Amino acid sequence: MSITNDQNQMLIQMIKEFTTNELAPLDMTIDANGDYPDGLLQKVIDTGLLGITLPREYGGAGFDYVAAAEALEKIAVGNASMAVTLEGHFKTIEQFIKYGNKELNEKYLPSAVKRIFAFSMTEPSGGSNPKGIATRAIKQGHNWVITGDKIMITNGGLAEVYCVLSKTQDDQMAVFVVDKDMPGFKFGKREDFIGLKGVPVGEIVLNHVVVPESHLLGTIGEGLEIGDNAHADARVLMGAVLTGITDHALQTAVSYSKERKALDTPLYQLQVTQEKIADIAIAKQNTQALYQKGAQNKITGRPYAEVAAMAKSYGSRSAVAASDKALQILGGYGYSHEYPVEHLIRDARAMELAEGTIEKMNFEITNAEIAK
Amino acid sequence: MSITNDQNQMLIQMIKEFTTNELAPLDMTIDANGDYPDGLLQKVIDTGLLGITLPREYGGAGFDYVAAAEALEKIAVGNASMAVTLEGHFKTIEQFIKYGNKELNEKYLPSAVKRIFAFSMTEPSGGSNPKGIATRAIKQGHNWVITGDKIMITNGGLAEVYCVLSKTQDDQMAVFVVDKDMPGFKFGKREDFIGLKGVPVGEIVLNHVVVPESHLLGTIGEGLEIGDNAHADARVLMGAVLTGITDHALQTAVSYSKERKALDTPLYQLQVTQEKIADIAIAKQNTQALYQKGAQNKITGRPYAEVAAMAKSYGSRSAVAASDKALQILGGYGYSHEYPVEHLIRDARAMELAEGTIEKMNFEITNAEIAK
Amino acid sequence: MSITNDQNQMLIQMIKEFTTNELAPLDMTIDANGDYPDGLLQKVIDTGLLGITLPREYGGAGFDYVAAAEALEKIAVGNASMAVTLEGHFKTIEQFIKYGNKELNEKYLPSAVKRIFAFSMTEPSGGSNPKGIATRAIKQGHNWVITGDKIMITNGGLAEVYCVLSKTQDDQMAVFVVDKDMPGFKFGKREDFIGLKGVPVGEIVLNHVVVPESHLLGTIGEGLEIGDNAHADARVLMGAVLTGITDHALQTAVSYSKERKALDTPLYQLQVTQEKIADIAIAKQNTQALYQKGAQNKITGRPYAEVAAMAKSYGSRSAVAASDKALQILGGYGYSHEYPVEHLIRDARAMELAEGTIEKMNFEITNAEIAK
Amino acid sequence: MSITNDQNQMLIQMIKEFTTNELAPLDMTIDANGDYPDGLLQKVIDTGLLGITLPREYGGAGFDYVAAAEALEKIAVGNASMAVTLEGHFKTIEQFIKYGNKELNEKYLPSAVKRIFAFSMTEPSGGSNPKGIATRAIKQGHNWVITGDKIMITNGGLAEVYCVLSKTQDDQMAVFVVDKDMPGFKFGKREDFIGLKGVPVGEIVLNHVVVPESHLLGTIGEGLEIGDNAHADARVLMGAVLTGITDHALQTAVSYSKERKALDTPLYQLQVTQEKIADIAIAKQNTQALYQKGAQNKITGRPYAEVAAMAKSYGSRSAVAASDKALQILGGYGYSHEYPVEHLIRDARAMELAEGTIEKMNFEITNAEIAK
Repeated sequence: MSITNDQNQMLIQMIKEFTTNELAPLDMTIDANGDYPDGLLQKVIDTGLLGITLPREYGGAGFDYVAAAEALEKIAVGNASMAVTLEGHFKTIEQFIKYGNKELNEKYLPSAVKRIFAFSMTEPSGGSNPKGIATRAIKQGHNWVITGDKIMITNGGLAEVYCVLSKTQDDQMAVFVVDKDMPGFKFGKREDFIGLKGVPVGEIVLNHVVVPESHLLGTIGEGLEIGDNAHADARVLMGAVLTGITDHALQTAVSYSKERKALDTPLYQLQVTQEKIADIAIAKQNTQALYQKGAQNKITGRPYAEVAAMAKSYGSRSAVAASDKALQILGGYGYSHEYPVEHLIRDARAMELAEGTIEKMNFEITNAEIAK
Repeated sequence: MSITNDQNQMLIQMIKEFTTNELAPLDMTIDANGDYPDGLLQKVIDTGLLGITLPREYGGAGFDYVAAAEALEKIAVGNASMAVTLEGHFKTIEQFIKYGNKELNEKYLPSAVKRIFAFSMTEPSGGSNPKGIATRAIKQGHNWVITGDKIMITNGGLAEVYCVLSKTQDDQMAVFVVDKDMPGFKFGKREDFIGLKGVPVGEIVLNHVVVPESHLLGTIGEGLEIGDNAHADARVLMGAVLTGITDHALQTAVSYSKERKALDTPLYQLQVTQEKIADIAIAKQNTQALYQKGAQNKITGRPYAEVAAMAKSYGSRSAVAASDKALQILGGYGYSHEYPVEHLIRDARAMELAEGTIEKMNFEITNAEIAK
Repeated sequence: MSITNDQNQMLIQMIKEFTTNELAPLDMTIDANGDYPDGLLQKVIDTGLLGITLPREYGGAGFDYVAAAEALEKIAVGNASMAVTLEGHFKTIEQFIKYGNKELNEKYLPSAVKRIFAFSMTEPSGGSNPKGIATRAIKQGHNWVITGDKIMITNGGLAEVYCVLSKTQDDQMAVFVVDKDMPGFKFGKREDFIGLKGVPVGEIVLNHVVVPESHLLGTIGEGLEIGDNAHADARVLMGAVLTGITDHALQTAVSYSKERKALDTPLYQLQVTQEKIADIAIAKQNTQALYQKGAQNKITGRPYAEVAAMAKSYGSRSAVAASDKALQILGGYGYSHEYPVEHLIRDARAMELAEGTIEKMNFEITNAEIAK
Repeated sequence: MSITNDQNQMLIQMIKEFTTNELAPLDMTIDANGDYPDGLLQKVIDTGLLGITLPREYGGAGFDYVAAAEALEKIAVGNASMAVTLEGHFKTIEQFIKYGNKELNEKYLPSAVKRIFAFSMTEPSGGSNPKGIATRAIKQGHNWVITGDKIMITNGGLAEVYCVLSKTQDDQMAVFVVDKDMPGFKFGKREDFIGLKGVPVGEIVLNHVVVPESHLLGTIGEGLEIGDNAHADARVLMGAVLTGITDHALQTAVSYSKERKALDTPLYQLQVTQEKIADIAIAKQNTQALYQKGAQNKITGRPYAEVAAMAKSYGSRSAVAASDKALQILGGYGYSHEYPVEHLIRDARAMELAEGTIEKMNFEITNAEIAK
C-alpha cells in the first residue's frame, strides 16, 4: 500500500508544527550550548521522526525519499542540526534497505524508530580516501572480527548502530554493522566543530569487535559501492537541509527588511537590499529543485548521484552566501548572537566539507558529464 | 483533444533534428554575418516552428508552454538567436490568446504560422518606464489612431504584426495591434548589438496609424498588466534559451577537455577544469529547473512571474559565467572566432538586460517575497 | 626632530616581537573567552603601544601614521582584536591632534599613553545617520551640559576618554570630550558580537555631564567634519588590520599545505590549493597597498578618504573571502576551533559593517570619482 | 645622467596628448577594423614611443620601467591594442639589455626606435610547456642554424626582429635573435582573436635560418630563465595596460552615470550604480598599485616576478569584471557597438590567457609564497 499524496501533506504539516513548537524555539540554545537539550531527542523519537523512511514492515511510516527530504527541509528551517542528525540516520537506513540481508534487517531495523543509526568511513590517517582505510575485518569461522578507528561520523557518540567500511584480510572493501553495546566498542573524541552545534561528529574505536556473518552489508567487495551510495543518499538530504537553512535566512532577511527603515524607507525598497533578497530567494529555489530532482530520480530508479552532488555543492555554497547576505542586511544585529543568521553561515559551511568536499563534488559531476 | 506525452517527445525529436541539420551548422555564420542567411527563416516557417504554441483552431500545433520552452532550449543549443526570435514571437502570441477578442484573433492568429509577431514597449525617451510612454492612441469614431515611436523591439523589422503599448487621450495604458502594411507604419533603426546577432532588435515608427476597435488587446487600462504578462511569458522562454546556451558551452567544454591534454593528462582530469565543468553543469541544471517550473506553473494556472524573473536573472548571469569558464578551458581557442564559446558569452549577456535588467528582476523577486 | 627610517624599523621589530611573544599565544584564548586576559592590556600599556602616534611633546613616541598602520598590521597577524583596540585609540588621538585646542590637549593627551581614548557617534535610534543624533549639548555659562546615549563604540567600556558627537541647542553638530570619571557618565550595554571578541563594543550614557568650553573639539558646526575625519583615519588603520588578518590566513594556509598531503602530493601542489593561496596572497598585497597609500597620503597632506574607504571595503571583503579559502584548504581542521582560520572570518567580517558599511563605502568612493 | 622626475612628468604629459589626439579617436575603428589604420604606427614611431625604455646610448629616451609602465597605462586608456603592441616591444628590448652581448646590442638596438621587436616561445604542438619545444638550433661552425615554428607571438607579423626560444642539439634551452629579412624566415598565420584587435598575434616559420654566434641571448642553457624574465617583464606592463583599460571603463561609467537619469535621479545616485562604480575604481587602484610595485621592485633590483604575476592575474580578472559592470550601467548602450565598454571586456579578457594563464599565475604565486 503506497503512501498517498494526502499522507505526504499530513506528514509535512505535522513536521511544520513540530518544528515551530519544539525545535525553532531551541535553535539559538542548541547553537549556544553546542548540544541538544535534555529530552529533545526523546521528543523526536516519540513523534516518530526516526521512522519516517523506514518501511512499514519494520514499524516505520514508510514515506518515500521525496517526502523524507521535504521533511528535513522544513525541520532545517527551525534547526539545521536536528535535520542533519536525521539525515545521518536516514542515509544509513537506506543502506540497510538496499544492501541488508533479511536476517540483519529483521534484527536491526525495527529498533531504528528509537535508536539512531550511523555510517562511518573516514579514518584518522587517510581522509576519506579508500586506499587509506586501515580498519580490518578478519574472518574467524562464521564471524568477522573488526578492529579500527573511525572519525568524523555524523551522530558519532549519539548513534547506537554503525555501518563500518572495512578492509578484509585480502584487501577487499566491505561494510559491517556493529552495535555500541558490543564488546570492544568504544566511543572516542567528539570534534569541536564551529557549526551544526547540535550534531555530534565523533569517533568510534573498534578493538576486535566480533559480529556474525549476517552483519555484512551487501557482499564482500561491495564496500565502496555502498559507501558511494550512502554519500549520494546523504547529499540529497543535505540539499534539503541547505534549502531549509537558506529559507531561514530568507525569512529573517525579509521580515527584518519589512520592519526596519533607512530614513523613512523600509529596507526592502532599497536596491542593495533587493539584490540580496533576490539572490537568497534564487539560492533557495535552486537548491530545492536540485534535491527534489535527486529524490525524485532515486524513487523512480533513475541515476541521482550527479544531481545529489550538485545539491550539496551548489546548495552549501549558495546557503553560505545567502546567510552572509542576510547578515549584511541586518547589519550589527546580523553580526551579533541575537539573531540566527550568523550561525546559519556556520551551519551551512559544514556542508562544503562534509560527505565530500566541493572539490570532490567537482570531480564527480565532471566525471558524470564526461561519461554522458 | 490534448497533446500527449508521445507527441511532446516527437516535437522535441523533430526540433533536435532541425537544429542539428539546419541551425547548428549556421551558428558561426549567423554570428559573423549579423543576420540570418537567406532562406533560413523560410525553412523555420516551413517546418512549422512559428506555430508550435498556436492553438489548433488557428492552424497551430497547440503544444503547451512546457513543450514550447523545451523546444527553445534545444534550438538554442544550436543557435541562440533563432531561439530568441521564436521567443519574441511566442510571447506575443500568448497575449493574443489571453487578451485578444474573437474577431482580432480570428483575423490575425491564423497568419502567425507564417508571419512573426512582436511586442513593443520601450520608447526612445523613457526606457521601459511606463510613465515615459509617449505613444498616443486617440479614439476617432470606431477607430484608434496611433502615433509613436517604439524601439528595442525583439524582431523589430522582421516581425509583421506588432502589439504596441500606448497611452489613450485620458492617460490610460492600452495595447493595440498594428500591422506593418498599415498606412503610417514605418520601420526605424536596427540596434547594433554585440550578441544574438541573428535577432534584429529594431524600431517602429507609427504616424497616425488607424486601427479598428477590435485591435485593442484586453481593455483600456489593462496595458501595463498585459505588458507584465508578456514580460513573464518572455522570461520563462529566455530561461529555456539560456539553458540551451549553457548546454552549448558545456558540450564544447566537455568535448574539448576530453580530447586535449596538458602533458599527458586529459584536461578534464585537472581539478581546475573540473571546477569549471561542474559549475557549468550546475548552471545548466538550475536554469533548466527554473524555466521548467515557470512553464509548469503557467500551464497549471499558478503564479509564475517570480520564478520567471529568477530564470532570466540567474540564467543570464550563470550562462555568461559558464561560457566564460568554457572559454578559459579552451584557452587561446576559446578566445578566438574559431570556437563558439566567445559568442555564447555575448549572446547570454543580452539577457542580463533584455526584458528587464537584473536590477528589475531583483525588484520583482523581492516584492514577491515580501508579499508572501 | 623627525623619526628616521631606522627608528621605524626598530618599532616594527619591537612590535613583531611583542606580537610573537605576548599576543599570538593568546589569540585563540581571546576569541574563546570573549575578552582580553587579565594583565594583557597593562602589558600593552607598559610596552608603550598606546603612545605610538602621540607626539613627543605629550609623551608619545611620535611615529607617523604610516608606521602606526604598519604596526597594526603586524599586531593583527597575532591578534586582530588588539589591533582594533589600538585602532580605536589612535583614530581618536588623531582628532585631538587635528582639532583639539592647546588647553584640552595639554590636559588630556599626556594620559593617552596609559588611558584608552574612544570616539562615539552612533545612537540607538538613528544608526550613524547624523540627522538622527539626539545627544544634546546645552551651553550653560562657560560649560556645556551633555545628555545622550551612544552605542557601538569601539572600546566602549574599556576606554576612559570619549569624543561625543552631539547637537547643540541650535542644532549644530559638535564634538565634545568627556571623561568616564565625570558625574553623570555611565557605561551601558556591551554588544554581543561574533568576532573581534577581545574588543568591547559598548555604550555610554551621559546624563547632564558638564564639561568646560575647552572640551569642544574644533568649532561648533564642525562636528560632522570631525566625524568624517575620524572615519577616514579609522579606515586606513582597518586596512592595516585586515592586511594582518589576511596574512594570518595566508601563513596558516601556506604552512598547512606544505605539511599535509593528499595521497603523496603536498596540498600546495594541487591546482585547487594554488588558486586559493594565490587569491589570499593577492588580497593581502592589495589591502596592504591600499592602506599604505591612505597613510602616505595622509602624512603628505593629500586627500585620503577615498582610498581609506577602499582599504576598508576591499580589505574586509577580501579578508573574509581569503580566510574562507584558508578554511577550505584546512578542511575539517579549518572548520574546527582548533585552528584560527574560522575566527579570522568572524574578525574580518566585522569590518564590512564597522565604521561604515560596504554600501556606505560605495557611496563615498563613487562620490569621490564623480567629483574628479 | 639619470632621468629626472620632471622628465618623467613631461613624458606622461606627452603620452597623454598623443593618446588624446591620435589614439583615442581611433579606438573604435581599430576594434572594428581589426587592424591599425595606415600611418598610425608611423606616427607612433615618429613620436619616439618605441624608444621610451631604450638606453640613450642606443638612441633611446632611457626612461626607467616605472615611467614606461605608466606610459602604457595612459596609452591603454585611449587604446589597449597599441599599449600591448608597445608592451611586446618593451619586454623584448629588456632581454637584449639584460642578456644581449655588446656586439648584438650595438647591431640591433639602435634600430629598435623604428623597428618592433618580439619574443617568441609558444609552439603549435606544445603550448608554452618548455618540454614541448621542437624548434632546434644546430651549431655549424660559428653560426647557429635554426628551424622551427613559433605561434601566438605578440606583434607576430608586425615585428621585424624576433627572440626565439630554441633547443640546441644537446637539448639545452637557448634564445636566439632572428631578423625577418633573413633567408628561411617566413611569416605564418595570424590568429583570429576576439579582442585587442589592433595587435597582430601571429606565427613565424624558420627554415634553416642562419645566425652568427653573437645572436645568442645570454648563454646556452639560459633559455628558460630568459623566457621567465621576459614573462615577468611583460606581466608588469600588462598590469599597466589593464589599469588603463579599467580606467577607460571607469571614465565611461562615471561620465554616463552623471549624465543619465532614472526618473529624475542621476544614475550615480543609485546604490546599485555606486556599488559598480566603487568596484571599478577599486580594481583600477589595486591593479595600478600592483604594476607599480612590480616596476619599482624591478628598477631597484628586488624580486618582482610574483607581484608581476599578481598584476596580470588580478588585473585581468578585475578589468573584465569592471568592464562588465560598466556595460551593465550603460544598459543597451553598453551592449552595443556604439560605446567602447564591450570591447574593453574583450581586450582585457586576452590577458587572462596571454603570457601565462590564470592557472599558471596561481602556480607561480603559490610557489613564491611557499618559498618565503
